[in-house]
Amino acid sequence: MTISIAHLGPPGTYAEQAAVFYVNWLAENTGIAATLCPYPSIAQSLQAVAAGHTQLAVVPVENSIEGSVTMTMDTLWQLENLQIQLALVMPIAHALISCATGVDNIKTVYSHPQALAQCQGWLEQFLPNVQLIPANSTTEALQRLEQELTTAAIASTRAAQLYNLPILASNINDYPENCTRFWVVSKVGAEAIKQTSSVHATHTSLAFSLPANVPGALVKLLQVFAQREINLSRIESRPTKRSLGEYLFFIDIEADAREARVQSALAELNIYTEVLKILGAYNVLSIGAMQ
Amino acid sequence: MTISIAHLGPPGTYAEQAAVFYVNWLAENTGIAATLCPYPSIAQSLQAVAAGHTQLAVVPVENSIEGSVTMTMDTLWQLENLQIQLALVMPIAHALISCATGVDNIKTVYSHPQALAQCQGWLEQFLPNVQLIPANSTTEALQRLEQELTTAAIASTRAAQLYNLPILASNINDYPENCTRFWVVSKVGAEAIKQTSSVHATHTSLAFSLPANVPGALVKLLQVFAQREINLSRIESRPTKRSLGEYLFFIDIEADAREARVQSALAELNIYTEVLKILGAYNVLSIGAMQ
Repeated sequence: MTISIAHLGPPGTYAEQAAVFYVNWLAENTGIAATLCPYPSIAQSLQAVAAGHTQLAVVPVENSIEGSVTMTMDTLWQLENLQIQLALVMPIAHALISCATGVDNIKTVYSHPQALAQCQGWLEQFLPNVQLIPANSTTEALQRLEQELTTAAIASTRAAQLYNLPILASNINDYPENCTRFWVVSKVGAEAIKQTSSVHATHTSLAFSLPANVPGALVKLLQVFAQREINLSRIESRPTKRSLGEYLFFIDIEADAREARVQSALAELNIYTEVLKILGAYNVLSIGAMQ
Repeated sequence: MTISIAHLGPPGTYAEQAAVFYVNWLAENTGIAATLCPYPSIAQSLQAVAAGHTQLAVVPVENSIEGSVTMTMDTLWQLENLQIQLALVMPIAHALISCATGVDNIKTVYSHPQALAQCQGWLEQFLPNVQLIPANSTTEALQRLEQELTTAAIASTRAAQLYNLPILASNINDYPENCTRFWVVSKVGAEAIKQTSSVHATHTSLAFSLPANVPGALVKLLQVFAQREINLSRIESRPTKRSLGEYLFFIDIEADAREARVQSALAELNIYTEVLKILGAYNVLSIGAMQ
């Protein structure tokens, strides 16, 4: 049996790198073979799973420097039938890729806005006068180089190798502890990858909206977890898109949704929330440093 | 006396539109004349104030659809001596601007990623096959048009008028209730604009980091406000950039930092936080619908 996995393309993006790791892990641990399907946006990779075009998607959730990937959160909230199967944490090392003979000749640097932001300090120090131009992905940035001698792109070493382009500088991210967390997402109750979800999950992700702007509503919700000694590892607010000042909340807890204390917390949460979504109970896999 | 105000440029951005409104408001209410100084990034507009090159900056904080402007939050955390003077809430109406004779001829659409995201549904419906290319600002997107007949940009009606470019479609944002909140920022204790801060402020903004990943730490902090019946209007987490899973928090409360109950809450907050920053106590001005 072969399953298909959607990710932000084209090949060479960090999302593809995480997906490649997962394909190997899947083959080793479950014997399932998988093929990769690149999509032009994160939203489209998740929509591909929801529509049944692929069995899974690997999507970035947050980066340790630039924070939440809002497109992922918003699309998971909008789509009805998706479920997180696994989290992957991958170290990110950016490289400056160019056909220029030296950094002094570079006038323009292309990359994904997250990557440009993660290398802001390095760029200010070594390329203070260049024009920074955002691209839809780090790979798309590479494709804009077109052998020009005054442009550069920020992408992974692996992408430079894939497209046979020279690396001018490695590890140019401002913070060495740069990691991105990805989620492996399937349809709810998907048969094909049941083997990958383990008996006990270390994390559960939830999303909820509140019935109105009730003072103290959020505190009450957080107390539901605190009273049961369930630790929150992350809280993230997103606009409801209805009006300024109305928010959704995304919460990760360090417990399995199937535990009795979590079940009881969720039952209480149901009373205070307008819409409550259990996005999934899952484990976290760390991906070793890859170039 | 004339003061200078930094904003994301070039002229025609929504930040400039908010700054123009503020300049008029300032003249009418305080008699102070102000000139605008466009900067290539939000970070540079805030740095201009911190370095004393301008007296004020007008920077976007959050949009009702796309959420927090992370560059603003991160830069306010990093810089030491800045203070919020006022909040401005401005309705946002995007237009499709192009020299093409009709939408059918358009192959490429440029805009700021936030604007592209805010018109996602409209673009999928009317321009499903175009290439979407991010730009550093909505105005920069306009400048890429260069009279080409197959490209379009998403920007404000006002920007189209400034650059004398034709509008193909108006009000193309997916959600009509699209607003952006801006902050007017000065140096702490700046003399020049003291007249603009009123006696009683309706909002206070704080930012803090926590000493370690203590379970329940955030709940304890939120209780400090709940116990004193101080309502939170917003909570936002940002990565500390030290390691994945460590966060800073930005909180807006509906009270004046100078009130006794807030002073007592802040004193208690000081015990639980690692770093606590009072970003400012201020009022909110609504900008009427502008084209």
